[in-house]
Amino acid sequence: MTTYNPPTREQNPYLPFGDHRDAPFYGKDILSVKQFTRADLDYIFGVAHEMREMVARVGSFDLLKGKILASLFYEPSTRTSSSFTSAMERLGGSVIPINEVRYSSVSRGESLPDTVRTLECYADVIVLRHPEVGASALAAQFARKPVINAGDGIGEHPTQALLDLLTIVEELHQVDGLTVTLLGDLKYGRTVHSLARLLSLYDVRLHYVSPEILRMPQAILSELDESGVSQKEHTTLDAVLPKTDVLYVTRVQKERFEDQDEYESVKGAYVITPEIMQPAKDRMIVMHPLPRVGEINMEFDSDPRAAYFRQMEYGLYVRMALLAMVLGKA
Amino acid sequence: MTTYNPPTREQNPYLPFGDHRDAPFYGKDILSVKQFTRADLDYIFGVAHEMREMVARVGSFDLLKGKILASLFYEPSTRTSSSFTSAMERLGGSVIPINEVRYSSVSRGESLPDTVRTLECYADVIVLRHPEVGASALAAQFARKPVINAGDGIGEHPTQALLDLLTIVEELHQVDGLTVTLLGDLKYGRTVHSLARLLSLYDVRLHYVSPEILRMPQAILSELDESGVSQKEHTTLDAVLPKTDVLYVTRVQKERFEDQDEYESVKGAYVITPEIMQPAKDRMIVMHPLPRVGEINMEFDSDPRAAYFRQMEYGLYVRMALLAMVLGKA
Amino acid sequence: MTTYNPPTREQNPYLPFGDHRDAPFYGKDILSVKQFTRADLDYIFGVAHEMREMVARVGSFDLLKGKILASLFYEPSTRTSSSFTSAMERLGGSVIPINEVRYSSVSRGESLPDTVRTLECYADVIVLRHPEVGASALAAQFARKPVINAGDGIGEHPTQALLDLLTIVEELHQVDGLTVTLLGDLKYGRTVHSLARLLSLYDVRLHYVSPEILRMPQAILSELDESGVSQKEHTTLDAVLPKTDVLYVTRVQKERFEDQDEYESVKGAYVITPEIMQPAKDRMIVMHPLPRVGEINMEFDSDPRAAYFRQMEYGLYVRMALLAMVLGKA
Repeated sequence: MTTYNPPTREQNPYLPFGDHRDAPFYGKDILSVKQFTRADLDYIFGVAHEMREMVARVGSFDLLKGKILASLFYEPSTRTSSSFTSAMERLGGSVIPINEVRYSSVSRGESLPDTVRTLECYADVIVLRHPEVGASALAAQFARKPVINAGDGIGEHPTQALLDLLTIVEELHQVDGLTVTLLGDLKYGRTVHSLARLLSLYDVRLHYVSPEILRMPQAILSELDESGVSQKEHTTLDAVLPKTDVLYVTRVQKERFEDQDEYESVKGAYVITPEIMQPAKDRMIVMHPLPRVGEINMEFDSDPRAAYFRQMEYGLYVRMALLAMVLGKA
Repeated sequence: MTTYNPPTREQNPYLPFGDHRDAPFYGKDILSVKQFTRADLDYIFGVAHEMREMVARVGSFDLLKGKILASLFYEPSTRTSSSFTSAMERLGGSVIPINEVRYSSVSRGESLPDTVRTLECYADVIVLRHPEVGASALAAQFARKPVINAGDGIGEHPTQALLDLLTIVEELHQVDGLTVTLLGDLKYGRTVHSLARLLSLYDVRLHYVSPEILRMPQAILSELDESGVSQKEHTTLDAVLPKTDVLYVTRVQKERFEDQDEYESVKGAYVITPEIMQPAKDRMIVMHPLPRVGEINMEFDSDPRAAYFRQMEYGLYVRMALLAMVLGKA
Repeated sequence: MTTYNPPTREQNPYLPFGDHRDAPFYGKDILSVKQFTRADLDYIFGVAHEMREMVARVGSFDLLKGKILASLFYEPSTRTSSSFTSAMERLGGSVIPINEVRYSSVSRGESLPDTVRTLECYADVIVLRHPEVGASALAAQFARKPVINAGDGIGEHPTQALLDLLTIVEELHQVDGLTVTLLGDLKYGRTVHSLARLLSLYDVRLHYVSPEILRMPQAILSELDESGVSQKEHTTLDAVLPKTDVLYVTRVQKERFEDQDEYESVKGAYVITPEIMQPAKDRMIVMHPLPRVGEINMEFDSDPRAAYFRQMEYGLYVRMALLAMVLGKA
């Protein structure tokens, strides 16, 4: 990151190859949940639903045949990279997988802008996972081709938030009027921050259940207050579970804690089991961004309300939709 | 591995995408050589032979176009993963390569069942290599999609055994009546154990040639005795070589030995050279699962009886056959 | 590497699959810039130009549909491997990526000839990056399928030299008559050695600008003297810049220096900035093999003469051309 003021995309004289369309999101970057209006979300989820139906019917189809995705992961994430790879392949496109960045020339001191400007010579769209906040925005500033943020450190992971919301839409057929309870690590959990922001575009009631030291950050509480959404904080699940339509469970990650005793004292709290779920509604869903390590007991997996593996599948559809959209094909 | 009793595939209400067929092996897992009857092997080798002819004629074809293989390797194996990747690509399908598991989220404590249930959201079939015995069976228990075992520690590596047997069938046009000699490390060699089991379905004479400390395990000798196959143990090759139709050479792997002196004392034994092969038949084959490190001298490579590189190619055809079969296309 | 005299390709009785053509370079290896005549270069650049036009018009096309590239990288090079992967995918072919060689079975003592003879069972062409000089030639000696050298240590990297020359051809529409200035690390820089050799096939004037300790090796000076090309050495850029048509900047790599003080004393020399470029012609180009770490200031990137990112794109076209040629499709 530098104080140097780079040439903008407008100043850059080289045109991308490929076809031009008037489609919404054509050539756009996907960097942050903050860039979406409610109309945008309706549009994305509409395309994602079509993708779901097409996959159910024919498995794969050649919408992006001949298009190439550069999948640039500066830190490993099997789940996210597999999902984007599958999304591209189910649309008939190809992938350049770049996973071992730590050993490669791009780590021999090359700047992210140079790496991105090289890769876009070979690809039509770039998916970037990077440990530093703002990396995707920097990449997008230099790239002529669309950049999709697949997680930038403690910053954003917008496609995760979109798949979370798509899960609610597909499973419960509405968002307005729902009671959504976010459980677990609400302080460090990037996914719950982004999801809460997206939910604030709808008429929902948000409940936050966390240990005292892992409460939702004040900045987000304030931001959502301004949008007028109803928010309440709790330290136990009991009172809110019976009225909850969506229970979003997050993992308490050891690496977020400086004090390991603190971690040990909270890690067992808020574990979901069949017994604990008895007071919950029949028609509600339990979500989790995965991986889980004990925060949802495996015995709950066969419960129809356990939506977390279906959630992974919705991730495929939302990423198929985004790739098709930014490449002007949806 | 857990005492928890998971939901079986039958209890799982979510249907796979894709077409249904009455084809044998459609939707089945490939976990162990023990699952095959002689009729199964005839069928597999018939399809594999067709694959060989198609590849010779047209290189690749679109039988599995739109299908996706998740290639999940918890330990590296260039040979096996390349072979499966090529098999999928020659059939027009795509691959999600997951090789760097050690660094990725799946190693941050996620269970194999969860990883598999995530990946099957993105893929149509899963190939799994894992260092622990039973890993593939566990994965298959949880997966809705077919799982192919590509080696589970000192357990099984069924596609290796199948390609070994296919090599014999394609090169010598029969199995019944053959004299097969297994040479080298017969104690720790997973491949010879599986091959011997498959061969016991045929009318063959088996000879085992190994140092005393690397003899074929008693459990396997007993198992094959029950099947009525003829077995004899030797410590030198001389007597059996002239009547041998198939000489299967295995590598003495350093890592199998606790005592390195023991390794040094046996590693040079049973090295194949042009001179040693002089008493052998003109029409016989020398096989090796590769990699080799000196147990077959490179000077023997140009001998027509040296079948070990052709053996690698048969591996492609048998894996093409299995992928097509479990996906209902053969 | 061994004193053993292996069977040549001619002695090897196994035929490759696929179609045969009378096309130039069909079935050939690409190992060294020394193998090319000026007529060869004209032919390659003609095909590469066609590839550029096809990509501009349709993005990708199915010239190599069904063909498989084994991309075997014994050391990482994101740029080169991504470029070859993209080249194969834009031609409709598939790739077997083998990047993690250090952990895999091929590193458990297997020889390069064995690895190559295994991989060619699965692929139609092999691209090899290896840290040892001569590795590609050794691989080609054993392989029935074409081998393309993607860099063998301090040896050669012929596709880099070809893309460098293609950049000059495409940007300036000629090579004869040009003044080409090579700047920076001329002693250890593999790319400038290969480029200088290729340029000696043309009627050019070469200027070498480097610190005293990083001068062009005497062996190359002598070799090019014999070809009659004009060569001059300098320690500063000032005098030659105004007449330069092509300024080729190279990175001073820290790892090339045994004495780190020596590195510190030269690393800042010869940095390209907008100010320094003021005396240069309007119609000239600045090239760099990338990655750069400060030897060209980012403020120069928006100058139309900055050709280094376009140069990466020409790398795609030259590799598409070579893959199509050796596979008999161009």
